[in-house]
Amino acid sequence: MAALLKGLRVLCSGHLSHYGIKSLQCKPTRILSQLPCNSSYQRRLFANKNMTVELDSNTGVAVIQMKNPPVNSLSLEFLTEFSISMEKLEMDRECRGVVITSSIPRIFSAGLDINEMYGKTPEHTGEFWRAVQEIWLNVYGSNLVTIAAINGASPAGGCLLAMACDYRIMADNPKYTIGLNETKLGIVAPFWFKDTMMSVIGRRATEHSLQLGIMYSASEALRNGLVDQLIAQDKIMPTALSVMSEWLAIPDHARQITKSMMRKPTLDRLLTNRESDIQNFVNFISKDSIQKSLQLYLEMLRQRKS
Amino acid sequence: MAALLKGLRVLCSGHLSHYGIKSLQCKPTRILSQLPCNSSYQRRLFANKNMTVELDSNTGVAVIQMKNPPVNSLSLEFLTEFSISMEKLEMDRECRGVVITSSIPRIFSAGLDINEMYGKTPEHTGEFWRAVQEIWLNVYGSNLVTIAAINGASPAGGCLLAMACDYRIMADNPKYTIGLNETKLGIVAPFWFKDTMMSVIGRRATEHSLQLGIMYSASEALRNGLVDQLIAQDKIMPTALSVMSEWLAIPDHARQITKSMMRKPTLDRLLTNRESDIQNFVNFISKDSIQKSLQLYLEMLRQRKS
Amino acid sequence: MAALLKGLRVLCSGHLSHYGIKSLQCKPTRILSQLPCNSSYQRRLFANKNMTVELDSNTGVAVIQMKNPPVNSLSLEFLTEFSISMEKLEMDRECRGVVITSSIPRIFSAGLDINEMYGKTPEHTGEFWRAVQEIWLNVYGSNLVTIAAINGASPAGGCLLAMACDYRIMADNPKYTIGLNETKLGIVAPFWFKDTMMSVIGRRATEHSLQLGIMYSASEALRNGLVDQLIAQDKIMPTALSVMSEWLAIPDHARQITKSMMRKPTLDRLLTNRESDIQNFVNFISKDSIQKSLQLYLEMLRQRKS
Repeated sequence: MAALLKGLRVLCSGHLSHYGIKSLQCKPTRILSQLPCNSSYQRRLFANKNMTVELDSNTGVAVIQMKNPPVNSLSLEFLTEFSISMEKLEMDRECRGVVITSSIPRIFSAGLDINEMYGKTPEHTGEFWRAVQEIWLNVYGSNLVTIAAINGASPAGGCLLAMACDYRIMADNPKYTIGLNETKLGIVAPFWFKDTMMSVIGRRATEHSLQLGIMYSASEALRNGLVDQLIAQDKIMPTALSVMSEWLAIPDHARQITKSMMRKPTLDRLLTNRESDIQNFVNFISKDSIQKSLQLYLEMLRQRKS
Repeated sequence: MAALLKGLRVLCSGHLSHYGIKSLQCKPTRILSQLPCNSSYQRRLFANKNMTVELDSNTGVAVIQMKNPPVNSLSLEFLTEFSISMEKLEMDRECRGVVITSSIPRIFSAGLDINEMYGKTPEHTGEFWRAVQEIWLNVYGSNLVTIAAINGASPAGGCLLAMACDYRIMADNPKYTIGLNETKLGIVAPFWFKDTMMSVIGRRATEHSLQLGIMYSASEALRNGLVDQLIAQDKIMPTALSVMSEWLAIPDHARQITKSMMRKPTLDRLLTNRESDIQNFVNFISKDSIQKSLQLYLEMLRQRKS
Repeated sequence: MAALLKGLRVLCSGHLSHYGIKSLQCKPTRILSQLPCNSSYQRRLFANKNMTVELDSNTGVAVIQMKNPPVNSLSLEFLTEFSISMEKLEMDRECRGVVITSSIPRIFSAGLDINEMYGKTPEHTGEFWRAVQEIWLNVYGSNLVTIAAINGASPAGGCLLAMACDYRIMADNPKYTIGLNETKLGIVAPFWFKDTMMSVIGRRATEHSLQLGIMYSASEALRNGLVDQLIAQDKIMPTALSVMSEWLAIPDHARQITKSMMRKPTLDRLLTNRESDIQNFVNFISKDSIQKSLQLYLEMLRQRKS
């Protein structure tokens, strides 16, 4: 099979248009094990405020480490930086895959930043929601291999980010939980959160999970397929990179066309309804009752800290 | 999280219209454990012929006990009473959830009453089928939390009723079976029976199950997800009420919007094709060959009894 | 239940048109166990070049044994013979089910014959692809009970053939693998391969499986539902026939309508896009880069042999 792969790898050159996919790029396919140990390739660092992005030109693998203390909240600034980073990697001819992880202990990401929704103008709220859509479109629709190394709690938006990846590895710690818990907060995950969850754990589990806002422990998440693999906390990055190398053994173009064939209908559904989805969110969040609840919630968070 | 929930529970007030859902009601959300033990609330009893409906105003939980001996056949009269009961509960500001169970030993429900299909006018048969559709629309589309406490055999229409609920608890008795066994009788489950089963056990298991008319034992039903939980027969009601209290900890409006988001396409499919579905059933059941078969079957049942 | 079945079996006579299914046939339903041991019925043999087709008039069960050494490649000739055989059995009033298996040791089928794609005219390539579509339409859309007795390796097109059946039994040999490994070869499984796999193992497993081109061992295939049952190699045919008799206990017409209700949307999708799917394939395969790769691959195969 190895020989066969070598023979066929030549296939990786521009013949994708017949699948109606225009934006796919063919990047050089390199086999990790063939690379010299003392390579002259360099690590390139993208220094950002809310995350570190490091691309290893040897392997074609980038790592995004989220670092927005205290809980990697998805603020407008964070989301914008993340989307720009993803777009840069997508365009970078040396990048073929990305691992998304956190540098905050015990937290992958706590989800959307509630400060962006409280006491803001409709314009701001709309801009924020567009940035939430954008990060999902960028990750769920990425041509890169995307692996989530979930090294901490991952509720709501954090879970969405992980589910949008191709593969999920979670630290085997019973204290870490993951799920879409929106209903527990009195709010509702929008249709594309639901579609993403259905594409991972199926319809019945999604219906059950979303209605009850279930947060799954790591082992429960493995059992119902919300994550693909558990591993000891200190082995999560080596494991993610090892899994990545398996994915990168597949010629990019064939994998990309296949991924697009699976995900395009789900992506198109948000693209088609993007403006109305923003309008719905703005209307919902602008209501007095919701604003009052958010105020109470933020006060509670503040009291907790002190 | 508990504090967070309290803070956000205020969210439960009318802001549902932006999801296009008009008929949702916001009922007062009460936490079961907060209620005094010696409450002054009363139990209200709806006395019907084919079922007992009891609403506990303390908890917001109604129990429908089917009692149509010998096997809880779904006759036209039964179906009509059931649908009216569901509609009453749906409108009752004190009701938030309903447990559906049977008071007949060893039988949850044996499914559609064949007497309603034999030797009847097309008008009668059409009215009957409309009532079958109605009970499914009422249960599958209910805003209440619906839990099936399956304390006996549950073939065909009995299985449909259980599958239409949000959660299924089955008595852990190997003699009790559940499934859509229509093909075994030479008939065919209509598309919305199929859609409902697919929404519970997925496509492959549904295809296999429907083609062979498989009746699953309780433990098989648990394994393939047709039921969510097994419990000893004498613990089935306490368990159902305990599960119900978990579901009622979620703010109604968020749960209802989420449920509707999941189920509306399936409900709409029957609503759109309701008349043609009735016509198909009437045409099918009016055929001489089918009537002859039903006659033979009813005679066989009569001989068995004597 | 047995008595009930007898009573209802009369139902098996022409009342299928109301489901919009015109081509279904009602064949006499016989119970295997009722047949005399020393029956006067005869085995009928269809002698073909690439396969043996044997119909047992006693049981209504045909067996197709593929025999196209060395690896049961799906050549144009093979595909044409297979489709004609399926159509003959479909029309044969004595045939109710078919078991598909291989007479080549350790190989079920290695999939599409690459010789049909290399150095051929667009007309030839188009004809070949139409034959691939045809075999799938014939098997996935068959009114017969179709059981795959997978007695060897089953990559790519071999896996498609198996997945198109109603039920899959695989020889319990860790050396036998099954899967759609197209991406590993730099090519892409078309949408109807994907749809077929999703109908068997669900969406998440399909996305994972297709992106990585995973070949599953027999036990992995059982675990993720790609096959329904494992059995020792020497018991595979008796087991297939025993499973078949369970399926044939169901009245044909009810099973056929149910099967059609499940599979028609998937079949229609290819029927609607048949010509564009052929055009896509021809354009893809005619590219210089692909032709070069196929040449290298064929040379490699030739060197391996010698």
